[in-house]
Amino acid sequence: MSAPQEALEYVRANRERYLSELKEFVNIPSISTLDEYKADVQRAAEWVAGQLRSLGMNNVQIMPTAGHPVVYGEWMRAGKSAPTIMIYGHYDVQPVDPIELWTSDPFRAEVRGDYLFGRGTSDMKGQVVASLKAVEAIVRTTGLPVNIKWLVEGEEEIGSEHLGDFIKEHKKMLACDYCLNPDAGMIAPDKPTITTGLRGLAYFELKVYGPDKDLHSGLFGGTIHNPAQALIELVAGMHDKNGKITLPGFYDKVRKLGRKEREDFKRLPVTNREIIQMTGVPALWGEPQFIPAERVGGRPTLEVNGLLSGFTGQGSKTVLPAWAMAKISCRLVPDQTPEETEKQLRAYLKKNAPKTIKWELKNLHNAGAALTETNSAGVQALAQALQTVWGKRPYFKREGGSIGSVVLLQKYVGADSLLSGFGLPDDNVHSPNERMNLPTWYKGIEAFTHFFYNF
Amino acid sequence: MSAPQEALEYVRANRERYLSELKEFVNIPSISTLDEYKADVQRAAEWVAGQLRSLGMNNVQIMPTAGHPVVYGEWMRAGKSAPTIMIYGHYDVQPVDPIELWTSDPFRAEVRGDYLFGRGTSDMKGQVVASLKAVEAIVRTTGLPVNIKWLVEGEEEIGSEHLGDFIKEHKKMLACDYCLNPDAGMIAPDKPTITTGLRGLAYFELKVYGPDKDLHSGLFGGTIHNPAQALIELVAGMHDKNGKITLPGFYDKVRKLGRKEREDFKRLPVTNREIIQMTGVPALWGEPQFIPAERVGGRPTLEVNGLLSGFTGQGSKTVLPAWAMAKISCRLVPDQTPEETEKQLRAYLKKNAPKTIKWELKNLHNAGAALTETNSAGVQALAQALQTVWGKRPYFKREGGSIGSVVLLQKYVGADSLLSGFGLPDDNVHSPNERMNLPTWYKGIEAFTHFFYNF
Repeated sequence: MSAPQEALEYVRANRERYLSELKEFVNIPSISTLDEYKADVQRAAEWVAGQLRSLGMNNVQIMPTAGHPVVYGEWMRAGKSAPTIMIYGHYDVQPVDPIELWTSDPFRAEVRGDYLFGRGTSDMKGQVVASLKAVEAIVRTTGLPVNIKWLVEGEEEIGSEHLGDFIKEHKKMLACDYCLNPDAGMIAPDKPTITTGLRGLAYFELKVYGPDKDLHSGLFGGTIHNPAQALIELVAGMHDKNGKITLPGFYDKVRKLGRKEREDFKRLPVTNREIIQMTGVPALWGEPQFIPAERVGGRPTLEVNGLLSGFTGQGSKTVLPAWAMAKISCRLVPDQTPEETEKQLRAYLKKNAPKTIKWELKNLHNAGAALTETNSAGVQALAQALQTVWGKRPYFKREGGSIGSVVLLQKYVGADSLLSGFGLPDDNVHSPNERMNLPTWYKGIEAFTHFFYNF
Repeated sequence: MSAPQEALEYVRANRERYLSELKEFVNIPSISTLDEYKADVQRAAEWVAGQLRSLGMNNVQIMPTAGHPVVYGEWMRAGKSAPTIMIYGHYDVQPVDPIELWTSDPFRAEVRGDYLFGRGTSDMKGQVVASLKAVEAIVRTTGLPVNIKWLVEGEEEIGSEHLGDFIKEHKKMLACDYCLNPDAGMIAPDKPTITTGLRGLAYFELKVYGPDKDLHSGLFGGTIHNPAQALIELVAGMHDKNGKITLPGFYDKVRKLGRKEREDFKRLPVTNREIIQMTGVPALWGEPQFIPAERVGGRPTLEVNGLLSGFTGQGSKTVLPAWAMAKISCRLVPDQTPEETEKQLRAYLKKNAPKTIKWELKNLHNAGAALTETNSAGVQALAQALQTVWGKRPYFKREGGSIGSVVLLQKYVGADSLLSGFGLPDDNVHSPNERMNLPTWYKGIEAFTHFFYNF
């Protein structure tokens, strides 16, 4: 079942007003990382709460956290047998430096051609307003066919630092079947996209200790094991000659990519040449039996994120360093877990570290991998909505990174996120002249309107 | 032929005066690294020049360099058939911080028990005065049986920065058969020591470049070759599993240690336990077929002196770095050269660097290895002198480091250095409460007196 004509007509009739309300929201400089914008961040939260109230949402609250508040609201009158859909968003934005590269004031939203320019237009005030306005069209016409809950945070651009505590504390209030998260964007204006997977993360610091102080490499070199050498031998040994990760059992739980999934990966329109142009590397790298999109979305990695040892200034100093450090992180896929990865890394180190040095491993950060089955009711409802509006089956992709809210909702609420949205790769997100494509946005509002009727 | 009785009696009769002149020299605070002591550094040069003049040396000059001056003097009347011995020394000293840890004023030399305390007593004003006073005893009694030249610099403690230019410019004036360098010390009071070898050095910076900026390790990890990983794989591969260096041809020119040399190494009294205690490492490391003294003195190494890449602060940042850097240096033994080592390193990198990254190698510093044959006339003369005074054959050791003047004199003058001296390992050189053992010093003056007659 798609959206009734009357709801769609409401959307089309109100486009101008929808846009002017979005401008109002964009013009609030809710930069979460800068103290001097604290009042504006609060004002943006109030703006969202006001919208929810005007939609007739119940229990609308601006709820404090140790940082910026979370805006909550719900409408639970569709009955117990109807599904409950949470809508996630964030009302905070990135800073605007370097301001001199902006063509127009980032906090005076301006339409030029097909685009609305301004900080947060694409990431993600435009996406929040698209969700609000789809719900408005339903509320003002047929009424909502599902229960909905809103979770709009103010700290996404600073790492969702307090969202974990909030979700953990309010997991009953937040109970839902799916979370619609429109912060994931699409591949191209003609390519509606659903992100079905995110990789997990296990981040470590490995330190190797040798002598109790830096030594003269002439007086001791040859008889004292250089900890920088020991470290790089250990870390280099974590890949074999074919680039496979050698931690014992590392691949045991890696879920194989199915035929259907590999077809979805293959259908993605990104070419190798585009990745090379985007990054400036001489050539791509990785497991030859997988295409780049699979390697980034569906395969685990072990990366060196940082190295530090001994003398790193200009010129030469003949030091045999006392210690050496590497930051190492693994991107994980279902059904790997950060906890098992740490065990595997410790087993590797125990087996391979020589007796001539000491080592210490710290686990700095963990996040689980997330995967939403493409044949689930939520993904099907969203896919059908996108197909109705764009006239083609959406692209299914997986992201190589982690998204805080997705992992937290899966962990504490047990709800899968439906990752989509109408941001485009060239929207200059986090950069000067952020913009949003208006024709795509209008289509997006209609797609979200369909979505709620598709359950 | 050893020293005639009259010269030795002169030494013994003048001990008190010798000591009081040394005190006078020590009391000049000639700290070469601190600008505010510049006049004192000059005064120390003048003190040395005054001594040379009083010994009847000819052509005594305080010769300017771009830094502190060099004191020169010569006595060439032993005839063309007699050998010419240069005596090297430095009149500058280290700073005295932390001053509060000194028991007595570092620049008011004080005798306590068997020791003379003060900055520079051991390193190396005591050694310079021992040489001056041995020559004085000869000059005042039999006259000199050899030609001598003095080269006393004022920048040893700051890396002999301008000595290379000086030696290069005055290589004719400095022509000699051997250079006596009493800056190398002895292993223990009862163990007279000659240092016969120094390792050379070839110091490099290797940089590996990947993407043109830091990337998000989630979005690109798995399809972009991480330059930190590429770097550590390259550098780790420079040693094989047994710790042998894999640069092509690296060992081809390494001169084998002879039976006699290995006996000299084995005779050295340093134990593995002492090295472990001194450095705080859990265990020693290196080529198992050689003992530690051989590995440090007679075998080449490749060391990682520094590592830098990506994120090195506290906590975690999921960066795939744009570049990674390693400082790498090889300690070289005869007949390796820094130039050939660079070629071997480049050949290794050309062969092993993957096409997925770019690399750049800079050569930052070179020094040749130095080896004085133990059966040369110079070493024999010195060994015999030490044996006459101590009643035992001296220990022959090789240092793992490089000494500027030794390399420069070999390069520009073609003269081998005879490295010895009467400093002891517990003299607190470069530390508070520097001291010199007086009974050893008196023996040293006698040994140097014998030395000049032994040619």
